[in-house]
Amino acid sequence: MLERILAGDERALARAATLIENRASGASDLLRQLFPHTGHALITGITGPPGAGKSTLVDQLARCYRAEKVPLGIIAVDPSSPFSGGALLGDRIRMQQHHDDSGVFIRSMATRGNAGGLARGTLDMALLMDAAGKRAILVETVGVGQDEVEVARLADVTVVVLVPGMGDDVQAIKAGIMEVADVFVINKADLPGAARLEQELRAMISISPRAADTPIVQTVAGEGKGIAECLSAMREVHARKKSDPAATWLPRLRGMLRERLLEQLPEAELEKAAREVANRTTDPYTVVDLMLAQIKRG
Amino acid sequence: MLERILAGDERALARAATLIENRASGASDLLRQLFPHTGHALITGITGPPGAGKSTLVDQLARCYRAEKVPLGIIAVDPSSPFSGGALLGDRIRMQQHHDDSGVFIRSMATRGNAGGLARGTLDMALLMDAAGKRAILVETVGVGQDEVEVARLADVTVVVLVPGMGDDVQAIKAGIMEVADVFVINKADLPGAARLEQELRAMISISPRAADTPIVQTVAGEGKGIAECLSAMREVHARKKSDPAATWLPRLRGMLRERLLEQLPEAELEKAAREVANRTTDPYTVVDLMLAQIKRG
Repeated sequence: MLERILAGDERALARAATLIENRASGASDLLRQLFPHTGHALITGITGPPGAGKSTLVDQLARCYRAEKVPLGIIAVDPSSPFSGGALLGDRIRMQQHHDDSGVFIRSMATRGNAGGLARGTLDMALLMDAAGKRAILVETVGVGQDEVEVARLADVTVVVLVPGMGDDVQAIKAGIMEVADVFVINKADLPGAARLEQELRAMISISPRAADTPIVQTVAGEGKGIAECLSAMREVHARKKSDPAATWLPRLRGMLRERLLEQLPEAELEKAAREVANRTTDPYTVVDLMLAQIKRG
Repeated sequence: MLERILAGDERALARAATLIENRASGASDLLRQLFPHTGHALITGITGPPGAGKSTLVDQLARCYRAEKVPLGIIAVDPSSPFSGGALLGDRIRMQQHHDDSGVFIRSMATRGNAGGLARGTLDMALLMDAAGKRAILVETVGVGQDEVEVARLADVTVVVLVPGMGDDVQAIKAGIMEVADVFVINKADLPGAARLEQELRAMISISPRAADTPIVQTVAGEGKGIAECLSAMREVHARKKSDPAATWLPRLRGMLRERLLEQLPEAELEKAAREVANRTTDPYTVVDLMLAQIKRG
């Protein structure tokens, strides 16, 4: 299976993707063996508030990549909710057109109840696609929950999509999202307010030591405008970040470790502790100390 | 200090709040001693997308509480960003009017670089206010990042504020936020589309076993309309949830534990590992296994 994946066999890739989705027992051994063959793809996370046009942008970026014959992976990340099924239907139909293209491999990821697991699973899926020869991987997150930001943060390059005219709280949304943005896209840039939004972004960027050279790209994704510029901004940032690849792996390792640590604790014990704290039989600080000691004893 | 806090002394409360903000060494002992005196306040988290009018709603709820002479705490949670300072200025001015009211205690919380820490710090602050005799605590989150949802999730009751006409992705935002909502507020309900939004929400709620009785309240917070209804919905939900207080403490304990676990790992070691993984000298799965073993050895 390993060799078939490395050779780019689509059926082996699909089978491995299902192993990862199901967190099957063989998945982690496979990922371990695939890992030395990764590091060749540009993994881009696309995030931003609802209505910003993330799906349309992903669709257009996919076209751009395919016009260059770049082998492509797309991961659509569902929020962890019983309601997500219908919400993504439109996106799935839109992506369908890429389905007949054998150079494009598309998968959705859902949380199945575990927040940390979504980011880890998405990263594993992206690494699998990387090892299988995909040279660009687009990770689109739906919604604005913590899971989505966590996922976006694990990409090589994170694109934050905004639209003009987002109202009073635009300062706040930009502040929260600023940390994870490597590239800003002002989509629907034909709407009034695009120039002002860009000005505001530049003003904010200019006072941030980290983000001072964050590119801002204007697009009208629905009409395919600005997509090539977006792609070259992504590539530029990636080239720049490659000089410090450890910076990409630090949050990834932290996330993986956090999730593994939480797996150590039996849920029943946590529930018992929650009851005792709720009754004020004990206090949460003492409980957490005890649990920490217990995890250490193993 | 303990006794003065329990007696409701505002200066002792302010000093203790600063200890918690700074994570001073004495803070956790103090919190441990205060804990048996908590559990009397209704802690409400207010969250929702930018532009929904969260600050205005908090302001109006504060008026409502004060009209009933309920001792009140307000916690404004900043996103962790160098840009957040200015963003909250408007809110701070708005809250200023409550500052002369000695029954109202107001604090802002910022992350200082640690995501998990914000939720823990906010909970500690709320518990402090609870022990000091505040009987209602409003936690307003700004922005849409993971930290904010995490904070909202730690409240006794979480209010999700939406507005009509949020566009195409409204399904997605509702899906992501659905899990944490105990009360839905449709604010700016005088805008077109309020009835349709309520219909959509009801349709979604009706198929969720957990959320089937989630109240939906229409407000025009700017004009003070629907605020009393919102408050009684909060109180109803709280009364209902009190029958299973452990359910509130389970995610809280999990969050506290996760943060404490991550503190165990020296940052320098994580950075070294990130470099090795980035070079493909090793793989992330092996690294995380080793770190886990190391934490256990202590």
